[in-house]
Amino acid sequence: MKGGLTMNKHEAITQGLRLIEKSNFCMLGTNGEDGFPNIKGMTNLKHEGIKKIWFSTNTSSKRVQQLRKDNRACVYYVDEKPFRGLMLVGTIKILQDIESKRMLWTEGAEKYYPLGVEDPDYSVLYFTAKRGNYYQALKNITFEIE
Amino acid sequence: MKGGLTMNKHEAITQGLRLIEKSNFCMLGTNGEDGFPNIKGMTNLKHEGIKKIWFSTNTSSKRVQQLRKDNRACVYYVDEKPFRGLMLVGTIKILQDIESKRMLWTEGAEKYYPLGVEDPDYSVLYFTAKRGNYYQALKNITFEIE
Repeated sequence: MKGGLTMNKHEAITQGLRLIEKSNFCMLGTNGEDGFPNIKGMTNLKHEGIKKIWFSTNTSSKRVQQLRKDNRACVYYVDEKPFRGLMLVGTIKILQDIESKRMLWTEGAEKYYPLGVEDPDYSVLYFTAKRGNYYQALKNITFEIE
Repeated sequence: MKGGLTMNKHEAITQGLRLIEKSNFCMLGTNGEDGFPNIKGMTNLKHEGIKKIWFSTNTSSKRVQQLRKDNRACVYYVDEKPFRGLMLVGTIKILQDIESKRMLWTEGAEKYYPLGVEDPDYSVLYFTAKRGNYYQALKNITFEIE
């Protein structure tokens, strides 16, 4: 935090939520097998507030392999103009129950999962945030998420 | 890699380089103190090919603190339409020599470093990639970087 600029938690969460809602995609950070961080762009499909976020992915993907070994993750939303970013840190559960898969299914998803909603190569990633950081115009705040 | 689609390393590097060149900013992934991955958006200032990348940052920032403890990092460039991404994995050196700081100085950088190019709160992050992954249109290739 520079120059005495401050922002409270409520404001950060309100602005962060707006950023989530206007984002078509976001970045998922995971721990690679060799100790290096990894990042992948993900389609922004569904969220509840800033605590719960769901993604769709291929069960066979490298990301799922990594998350089976280490479920610690972060999700990052960013806007170029004005430059602002929301980082959420938390853990991920890999879901393969049909209700979760139906909930997240979108038109055209056969492109990724040719066998449809029951495709075993289709999984849902369920992220739960425990901490957030919001950055905008040199203001920067880290906050716990209950 | 799905459906037998392939891409060779040369093609991935050529396309990845184009993506770097058109990007105004990119994402930096680091290892947080508590074992969780972290992501931050960074201005895309300077690179040499896909192996060497330089960033400007505040010496007092959380990112610099993290990199002093663990210099393993990744850099991610992404384009929404068509959806494509380049992830580079490697290590970071924190530079504070005046030549590096001058090389990366841009007009208006006083906004972040009020004391100018010699501001002790101004550091250069020098990233060297050892491995890359390029993704586009369901094609995905991981490659070593010499």
